[in-house]
Amino acid sequence: MKSYRKELWFEVPTRRAFVHITPQVQECLKESGITEGLCLVNAMHITASVFINDNEPGLHEDFEHWLEKLAPHEPVTQYQHNQTGEENGGAHLKRTIMGREVVVAVTEGKLDFGTWERIFYGEFDGGRKKRVMVKIIGE
Amino acid sequence: MKSYRKELWFEVPTRRAFVHITPQVQECLKESGITEGLCLVNAMHITASVFINDNEPGLHEDFEHWLEKLAPHEPVTQYQHNQTGEENGGAHLKRTIMGREVVVAVTEGKLDFGTWERIFYGEFDGGRKKRVMVKIIGE
Amino acid sequence: MKSYRKELWFEVPTRRAFVHITPQVQECLKESGITEGLCLVNAMHITASVFINDNEPGLHEDFEHWLEKLAPHEPVTQYQHNQTGEENGGAHLKRTIMGREVVVAVTEGKLDFGTWERIFYGEFDGGRKKRVMVKIIGE
Repeated sequence: MKSYRKELWFEVPTRRAFVHITPQVQECLKESGITEGLCLVNAMHITASVFINDNEPGLHEDFEHWLEKLAPHEPVTQYQHNQTGEENGGAHLKRTIMGREVVVAVTEGKLDFGTWERIFYGEFDGGRKKRVMVKIIGE
Repeated sequence: MKSYRKELWFEVPTRRAFVHITPQVQECLKESGITEGLCLVNAMHITASVFINDNEPGLHEDFEHWLEKLAPHEPVTQYQHNQTGEENGGAHLKRTIMGREVVVAVTEGKLDFGTWERIFYGEFDGGRKKRVMVKIIGE
Repeated sequence: MKSYRKELWFEVPTRRAFVHITPQVQECLKESGITEGLCLVNAMHITASVFINDNEPGLHEDFEHWLEKLAPHEPVTQYQHNQTGEENGGAHLKRTIMGREVVVAVTEGKLDFGTWERIFYGEFDGGRKKRVMVKIIGE
């Protein structure tokens, strides 16, 4: 069994953003030399997500609007967590809806995706350096 | 290490439905000959889900009602995504809540489940052929 | 390829609680002797979750409050599922938001975590013995 590990780093200037990372993950897979196996991609932070959906800007606006409705940033005083001095209570909840990780099949050296599947990094508490884990096992 | 891959195809006539797929996944596992490892089952579409929950019709009605409340289909004009000509903005959000994938332990040739765990395909934008990936690695 | 399996058992006296289980999972990893691979941790019940977030009590209160808003326990008559004699319709929905499972990279014999990542068992229908699966594959 082979295994491969890489950290991808991001510094998103805004509080929230979605970053398309399929090309970086494909690059990792190529580098790994693994052709059959599983590829785990996860946020290493608890106010960020990795998820699979459509690479369509309108949908990303819909996500932004919807998440803000389900888990609003403000008023920041509504979250106990923010009494620690943070302002990211809502970001923890948004990340929970969008998910921490994806596991993708690796087949014949490729991410084994449906037609429209793309991987995104979801930032909900940006303005600093954060990272994503790519771990691939197989052979 | 062995690896196995199969696509399961579905054509749900309604917009939304939950389909019990545990038997098909068990069949895949048997076919794979793998007795120890991990089994990934994921929707290959971004308006569909694979999830684990109870095989109880009342609960599925509850899911339907609840998802429609959290991520309504109508009015379709509320979603930017629908300006692309689609009507499935709400379906993308519903799938996000229900999840894209499950990873199941394989032990002694079986899906290593708790008593009530069953796998479902969740369709949120039906009326056409769509597919689920089953990828099993192990030995 | 090596594989390892262990069940962790919990009996939470209240209906709902979050239990920090990172130390138990680390103990499993040590016991497994696996140094490179993937570690799956999943609830074996459909009214419980395994998730990764911050080990901060204020945040856990926020989760409790937020989940109760998105998927209320009462009135219990609002859920079809509760006509089976259960009172846990809301618990199934809460578990859906928080997720069934996490997959964690194993690198150099350790759970390959970001600084604040910790694993929790989320109970939404307590008062009885329930269990979590830890399955590790690798070498």
